[in-house]
Amino acid sequence: MKTLRPSGTHRAAHSGSRPTTLDSVRILVTGAAGMVGRKLLERVARDGLLGRAGVSHAVLADLVEPSRPVGSSFEVEAVCADLAEPGVAAALVAGRPEVVFHLAAVLSGEAEADFERGYRVNLDGMRLLLDAIRAAGPGYRPRVVFGSSIAVFGAPFPDAIGDDYCTTPLTSYGTQKAVGELLLSDYTRRGFCDGIGIRLPTICVRPGKPNRAASSFFSSIVREPLNGQEATLPVPDDVRHWFASPRAAVGFLLHAASLDTEALGDRRSLTMPGVSATVAEQIEALRAVAGDEAVRLIRREPDETIARIVAGWPGRFDARRAHALGFRAETNFEEIVRVHIEDELGGRVPA
Amino acid sequence: MKTLRPSGTHRAAHSGSRPTTLDSVRILVTGAAGMVGRKLLERVARDGLLGRAGVSHAVLADLVEPSRPVGSSFEVEAVCADLAEPGVAAALVAGRPEVVFHLAAVLSGEAEADFERGYRVNLDGMRLLLDAIRAAGPGYRPRVVFGSSIAVFGAPFPDAIGDDYCTTPLTSYGTQKAVGELLLSDYTRRGFCDGIGIRLPTICVRPGKPNRAASSFFSSIVREPLNGQEATLPVPDDVRHWFASPRAAVGFLLHAASLDTEALGDRRSLTMPGVSATVAEQIEALRAVAGDEAVRLIRREPDETIARIVAGWPGRFDARRAHALGFRAETNFEEIVRVHIEDELGGRVPA
Repeated sequence: MKTLRPSGTHRAAHSGSRPTTLDSVRILVTGAAGMVGRKLLERVARDGLLGRAGVSHAVLADLVEPSRPVGSSFEVEAVCADLAEPGVAAALVAGRPEVVFHLAAVLSGEAEADFERGYRVNLDGMRLLLDAIRAAGPGYRPRVVFGSSIAVFGAPFPDAIGDDYCTTPLTSYGTQKAVGELLLSDYTRRGFCDGIGIRLPTICVRPGKPNRAASSFFSSIVREPLNGQEATLPVPDDVRHWFASPRAAVGFLLHAASLDTEALGDRRSLTMPGVSATVAEQIEALRAVAGDEAVRLIRREPDETIARIVAGWPGRFDARRAHALGFRAETNFEEIVRVHIEDELGGRVPA
Repeated sequence: MKTLRPSGTHRAAHSGSRPTTLDSVRILVTGAAGMVGRKLLERVARDGLLGRAGVSHAVLADLVEPSRPVGSSFEVEAVCADLAEPGVAAALVAGRPEVVFHLAAVLSGEAEADFERGYRVNLDGMRLLLDAIRAAGPGYRPRVVFGSSIAVFGAPFPDAIGDDYCTTPLTSYGTQKAVGELLLSDYTRRGFCDGIGIRLPTICVRPGKPNRAASSFFSSIVREPLNGQEATLPVPDDVRHWFASPRAAVGFLLHAASLDTEALGDRRSLTMPGVSATVAEQIEALRAVAGDEAVRLIRREPDETIARIVAGWPGRFDARRAHALGFRAETNFEEIVRVHIEDELGGRVPA
């Protein structure tokens, strides 16, 4: 573990990495200490593959120390790096990774609470990364998989949101992601990178503890009861939202890293498939898997701030393009609960 | 005329402007030396009004010296200012103008040719202006009328593009404008300003000379023949596009400055009404007004770069929201030709 500073020393460290063959790639993951980043790396380490390519080297970057995936057969460099600092992005891409997963982000609740930090991390970070990639060319044109979000959309909505619906976010987080998508498309069109933006559904069930995302409760009301703990529900039962499991999210990112982007045309960002469910349907799925006792642990505690943010979020998509390109998610919420139990609870449904 | 530098001296200059009453406003116009900015100021000087409010003071800013409108009854301060320089935006809003017309922009052709300059002027300039407005608060929340463009849209298109169609630009200029719209909405939602983005149709007939906008020929093929000069047409006759006159554009901006923005909700950018016409229809309108002789001055000279850019542009909109909010344009292309003759050629149709 080292702290990345915008100096020349890193370039040397990178150029010392072992040469890659045509069939192996170097990867960079920003936000590697985040939940999705961690799970992505666990999966890549387990598979030893990215699509059909081997992985020779991985740079894992985050504001806090990213953990190294267990059992990886490739070289791993974990760095503490703030993308928004001058020079940092250049150092991160100095090794010319063929695939960049840009997952670093301040989450929605925090971006709403801290205006400047949200713009700095989510917008400036994205732009500096893309500019560093541009500056590293010509001849360097990495696949950039950008972790965008369905928060780029804002109410009012049609019943099912199609692939050509306008992105009119109602949060600063969604704004920053929508800007990131625009930059990604333009930098791709100009030939600086080969970008693909993945609009992640709300990831559910997130493992671990509640976080500062306004969407945190969507996971809590399943996760905590499965652990025998109380969870608070800040919104009405009829709130409808769009979900995919962490396992599906990792699948999206890996598919995005290796698919043929020719089929994307100039619209480089895609709404990912997911499960449309109301809070009531979430609760019924929990009941089906873990019984009434689990459901009784959900305590209703209305929170107007959360409710107002979530009210502007989408409930259902017609994610036709992503489906056609081979992206797959769960098909109902009970499946999402079972994936959580398999991946996080050792497959044991609590008694 | 003075050159604006990011120093404290300007704040003093501004605070010396005469106090405004509730019924008069101070205005700031960026890009005031541009065609639309100039025409806007001529109109405001002629009316002495902005909507129903008087105008007490105007700061006109541009990279080159903005001309002072003739016969204005209000105080005019013309400044040479580069919005993308640190501190300049703060100096421009130090006088706390109630209405800001943000028209400064690198046009589409130039933004495509000079990647960095386009991002600097069109994106950084917008963000710095909004941040300066934010920093000047609390208690300061000006109306910001942002000159956006239909270039925020990119093919493929439906037959008529509705108000909720996605903004997937195919030029860097369109990207920068789309980012500007997103920022404007978010800064408005956060209470820093009261923004309204006006997606201008291609302005036709532009007076003066051809410029570096890829759309320049749309005006040339009417303007030059009316002056007895040859014009080159770089695209096929069946290219369809969306037009409004400079007079209509000024009308949009003035209406945007004074309408009740409550009706906008959270979607602060609007596609303006316009005239959908093919190049062939433009030519027939010219023929109807000025005869075959004028039409014979149009020389076809295909240009693949221009044709490729324009092919990604929209041809027809269903600008329902703007219509409902009272925005009005011409209703056919012949009317646009006649407006040009009235406003630029003293009403004389060439023999």
